[in-house]
Amino acid sequence: MADPLSDEQQIAWRTFIESSWALHTHLEDELRAQTGLSMNDYHVLVVLSEAPEHRLRMGELAGRLVFSPSRITYQISSMVKRGLVRKQPCPDDGRGQEAVLTDEGMAALESAAPLHLITVRDSFIDRLDPDELAVITRVFNKVRKV
Amino acid sequence: MADPLSDEQQIAWRTFIESSWALHTHLEDELRAQTGLSMNDYHVLVVLSEAPEHRLRMGELAGRLVFSPSRITYQISSMVKRGLVRKQPCPDDGRGQEAVLTDEGMAALESAAPLHLITVRDSFIDRLDPDELAVITRVFNKVRKV
Repeated sequence: MADPLSDEQQIAWRTFIESSWALHTHLEDELRAQTGLSMNDYHVLVVLSEAPEHRLRMGELAGRLVFSPSRITYQISSMVKRGLVRKQPCPDDGRGQEAVLTDEGMAALESAAPLHLITVRDSFIDRLDPDELAVITRVFNKVRKV
Repeated sequence: MADPLSDEQQIAWRTFIESSWALHTHLEDELRAQTGLSMNDYHVLVVLSEAPEHRLRMGELAGRLVFSPSRITYQISSMVKRGLVRKQPCPDDGRGQEAVLTDEGMAALESAAPLHLITVRDSFIDRLDPDELAVITRVFNKVRKV
């Protein structure tokens, strides 16, 4: 059985989990209200916009977003219906599939990005000083490795 | 228009948002697989278990969990169906409603807590040193205030 958390650990954990959950909800609500996109949509658009030729294999995209195979399939199907991405066979391997950013997807990202940036600054970045930002980077790099 | 993020800000933000999102997904998946509870179920059980007489007005519970009125109604209805909480009129005010932890809800929390603690330690707390935990507490206290 794991040791119970110390008072300091308990306070850090509760503060982090409640506050980060509220932040995710706030980011999602603002983005949807302003653009109709979900945070998952937005992250897919960002990752594809940074990929060579705006395309990535489905498995690679799932890895980047830490999505299960069924979640990435569902997410991409929904975005295909809305014209934000399309799916096509991988050129080097007939069996795999790639997600490709469409012009509409790129346009949606370009109009959403400045609005999302305001929310990100107001609710997180502009509240922290450079030392705190450096600790956030170090901590969440450690947390990311499962 | 907001200033673009500096490189340090951009790295901190991307690391935090991707890693904390993956952490939430991991906590949710582990908890569901081990106990059948969602993280929202778990947080409602924790908050009610700490409240006087294990009961809270719906509005207060929504505030603690940063839930909208419609989300808290949906969440509590789902938990009522599973016998984890019940709803009853507030004793001091016939119009309001309270959520009350049931014996089954308390038992579900008591059997889930030690399993959830292992996940919390492995995926977050045990990866950070005391200085990092102190910064996490300070940062997420600042972030929580919308």
